[in-house]
Amino acid sequence: MLRFLTAGESHGEAVISILEGMVAGLRVDTGSIDTQLKRRMQGYGRGDRMKIENDTVRILSGLKDGSTLASPITMMVKNKDASIDTLPPLSCPRPGHADLAGGLKYNQKDMRTILERSSARETVARVSVGSICKLFLSELGIEVISHVKVIGGVDCHTRDLSYEQVRDQAEKSKTRCADGAATKLMVEEIDGAKESGDTLGGCFEVIARGVPAGLGSHTHWDRKLDANIARALMSIQAIKGVSVGIGMGAAIKRGSKCHDEIIYKKGHGFLRRTN
Amino acid sequence: MLRFLTAGESHGEAVISILEGMVAGLRVDTGSIDTQLKRRMQGYGRGDRMKIENDTVRILSGLKDGSTLASPITMMVKNKDASIDTLPPLSCPRPGHADLAGGLKYNQKDMRTILERSSARETVARVSVGSICKLFLSELGIEVISHVKVIGGVDCHTRDLSYEQVRDQAEKSKTRCADGAATKLMVEEIDGAKESGDTLGGCFEVIARGVPAGLGSHTHWDRKLDANIARALMSIQAIKGVSVGIGMGAAIKRGSKCHDEIIYKKGHGFLRRTN
Amino acid sequence: MLRFLTAGESHGEAVISILEGMVAGLRVDTGSIDTQLKRRMQGYGRGDRMKIENDTVRILSGLKDGSTLASPITMMVKNKDASIDTLPPLSCPRPGHADLAGGLKYNQKDMRTILERSSARETVARVSVGSICKLFLSELGIEVISHVKVIGGVDCHTRDLSYEQVRDQAEKSKTRCADGAATKLMVEEIDGAKESGDTLGGCFEVIARGVPAGLGSHTHWDRKLDANIARALMSIQAIKGVSVGIGMGAAIKRGSKCHDEIIYKKGHGFLRRTN
Amino acid sequence: MLRFLTAGESHGEAVISILEGMVAGLRVDTGSIDTQLKRRMQGYGRGDRMKIENDTVRILSGLKDGSTLASPITMMVKNKDASIDTLPPLSCPRPGHADLAGGLKYNQKDMRTILERSSARETVARVSVGSICKLFLSELGIEVISHVKVIGGVDCHTRDLSYEQVRDQAEKSKTRCADGAATKLMVEEIDGAKESGDTLGGCFEVIARGVPAGLGSHTHWDRKLDANIARALMSIQAIKGVSVGIGMGAAIKRGSKCHDEIIYKKGHGFLRRTN
Repeated sequence: MLRFLTAGESHGEAVISILEGMVAGLRVDTGSIDTQLKRRMQGYGRGDRMKIENDTVRILSGLKDGSTLASPITMMVKNKDASIDTLPPLSCPRPGHADLAGGLKYNQKDMRTILERSSARETVARVSVGSICKLFLSELGIEVISHVKVIGGVDCHTRDLSYEQVRDQAEKSKTRCADGAATKLMVEEIDGAKESGDTLGGCFEVIARGVPAGLGSHTHWDRKLDANIARALMSIQAIKGVSVGIGMGAAIKRGSKCHDEIIYKKGHGFLRRTN
Repeated sequence: MLRFLTAGESHGEAVISILEGMVAGLRVDTGSIDTQLKRRMQGYGRGDRMKIENDTVRILSGLKDGSTLASPITMMVKNKDASIDTLPPLSCPRPGHADLAGGLKYNQKDMRTILERSSARETVARVSVGSICKLFLSELGIEVISHVKVIGGVDCHTRDLSYEQVRDQAEKSKTRCADGAATKLMVEEIDGAKESGDTLGGCFEVIARGVPAGLGSHTHWDRKLDANIARALMSIQAIKGVSVGIGMGAAIKRGSKCHDEIIYKKGHGFLRRTN
Repeated sequence: MLRFLTAGESHGEAVISILEGMVAGLRVDTGSIDTQLKRRMQGYGRGDRMKIENDTVRILSGLKDGSTLASPITMMVKNKDASIDTLPPLSCPRPGHADLAGGLKYNQKDMRTILERSSARETVARVSVGSICKLFLSELGIEVISHVKVIGGVDCHTRDLSYEQVRDQAEKSKTRCADGAATKLMVEEIDGAKESGDTLGGCFEVIARGVPAGLGSHTHWDRKLDANIARALMSIQAIKGVSVGIGMGAAIKRGSKCHDEIIYKKGHGFLRRTN
Repeated sequence: MLRFLTAGESHGEAVISILEGMVAGLRVDTGSIDTQLKRRMQGYGRGDRMKIENDTVRILSGLKDGSTLASPITMMVKNKDASIDTLPPLSCPRPGHADLAGGLKYNQKDMRTILERSSARETVARVSVGSICKLFLSELGIEVISHVKVIGGVDCHTRDLSYEQVRDQAEKSKTRCADGAATKLMVEEIDGAKESGDTLGGCFEVIARGVPAGLGSHTHWDRKLDANIARALMSIQAIKGVSVGIGMGAAIKRGSKCHDEIIYKKGHGFLRRTN
């Protein structure tokens, strides 16, 4: 059983994670974690915070000579801006954030005590943990990729692309979209929204390849793979929906028509590709 | 901390659940659990199995004089058809079910060893557990309702309805839809699909009222309320997507336009109403 | 991961357990569970309750044709005396029991609401669960036995006995002690205590054979085998101490003298035999 | 629910812990943690490692202006000797350690990959976590103290001492024993053992004051306070036995004679004092 705890505030000293339960003997190259941390900071139109951070991980435990010991692995990413104790208080909860609920729950008047932890900067810890897991999965021939499908209503066309094309073209796109034409439109949409002081949402797809049949289990609700994937994804800041396979598309067509192509065109939510 | 285990096969002797961690002194009327079990069996166009079952719960532990003892509560619902040991084997995995993955994982050639447990009959146990929780929540002034929004592409119009109207009209509808006109169209759609040997999907909304601010927590990923709701819902058989608030609708419009009405019209996924 | 919940009150309808996480394909003979339940009721000088119970298990889920399905296994043992709702209230907490702490915690004035669950009758559920696990371990060549070492100050002499002799002679002894002479003295001690309205404590040893090296793990405190054994044993009603290996004997001699024989003579606590 | 993960190897860069689930608004003085870390390093006759360490904690997350945020608290204690990657391999498993079991489990030939984590230096992390918990308990009027009762067979006489005397005199003793005469004998015993290249065991008592009735619960085995205390204590390196109240002493006397004084004289295991 793998488990992990993440820690760290947005303007605290560092973002830290401990991953417990990893096997012994896995080679860990910190460069590969830094690569994932760098990928995390990309994306056209990200906020200013992204620009000052240049995250690199430091592994404080769990390795000897670059290999895992099966003991807990501690990963620390220092924050460039560690001003948490000097930042001015913020008394007004921001809508759409954890401020109000958190402030009420923990009896806090300064919203900064909430937002410092609810911040998406916490995902630095999850990317660190995930990067080690990626190395482990890679040993088993499992690869997990993702690509952006929709931003601000701009959909993409990727149904004619192979798995490798989706993976590689998304990596090169400014908006992590495998469709070059859609990337351009997405960039325009982002620029437009920025100009008018607005924001945009989007939709991305995660694809895992090489996964053995039988992960998770049908025998108890909390062992189901889909359920645990949904929990993990929905726990990411700003994620509002998770779909598996046909997803919400199932609501609008008959079972006999639920093949991938149709759903794919519609671009509703996540989709498990079968090619 | 509340926890529960469910047990039971579709054609086994009974479906059983143990709910551990409930408070002491909660009045439990088994009639109210039976009412929920009955509601579970409704729905226009359900399969034949539904017709033979007339589920009633028997509480085997956790109560004295009709009140909880804080000790584990066992609920047993007997199956009418307990033929598990005499049913013929099934060697061909059914697509879209747990058969193949389960058979591979547990090294089984008779798919019946898998489908007996992966069956949605398991939700009898979850309804039992949920019914006790409903009684507990009711003491705290919390009510959780649900209604069907889409079936087979037929959307409903409920934006002008009050919370009470949604709740009460859905309860009377054949398809658990609060919109009478939509109910009729849904029934037609179901009849049509049945006639042509097809199936339909749909979309339902769950609304909780009276919930105190601060349930869950922003402090760690696995404490987040949305994440745990997504896990619980996605673990239900045949659920393919879960959304919170604006859900997938966020992908197609600007932040400034993300108010309920627009999303509601589109009928994408679940929606937390604010009226 | 194996987990289980137990349920049931001493004078409730039944004692129930659900064991979740067992492998598929394990043959389960309910007779072997009943044998363990019978062994649980033995022991010279047990209370009257023991005499009326003749426990037999009924498996309600998790099996098909006598083999496990990997789905949760429900075991139910009916109580002969299911008078929980008609028993008179008990307002005075009994010393040395959970009555007072439980009554204060759960705000109960009738101690019966506490003692019905804190009763050692709950171990019926754990014996049921353990019996299935015993069958599973047996497939792996692992055997777990136990024998009584001390009752009321009467120690036994078993250092010259083989593993098999300890196992077999304890099984035939009235007090589950492998030493026949000690058994006689223990019986006398029990008779004497009973006559004067007193009680006695004792000490037993659990020995597991065939266990592979490396169960548990040194990598995190809550994975340590000794820690989890201590938790499981200390959770049994009336258990006041748990030792592993040399145990408390370590407090009274030098490391160079800590070989089994010496400790064995002293009869302090549990001991992992090495023969 | 409080939970924590510990990390770090004996000669790694640091010992780290993350404590998750603490309340908001608790004042945390790192000086008080350092005091506990210093107490950890005391004890007459400790090894050389103790002399080079002068542990001080650095809190990397979870605080703002010295108060907890309810977010995970990371505590890091740097190791003076971080030579893990350059230490020579150790091919021979040391008896009485985790080396052999760990090496077999994790398929390691260099025992250093095991002992670096199984080392008692890991308790630095637990002391860090415990120190925060101590501050929290102190707010609730709960105090937890401990004192040494036996070392190498030398017992102490503390039955005439008050709680405060036990606490304060143990703090001043070289061997953390509240009995001055016994302390002297213990020191002699330790010197003697050291001279002859031998080791000694001992026995200590933990006493909690101000604990509200009803901690833990009788309702399920894994909620029982005694069980969880036993697990936590037995998980500490070199602990071989845990007793609660009368402990193993129950094996040698009648129930009517089980009052504290008698057991106390015998010095068998832990004892919950009642004064």
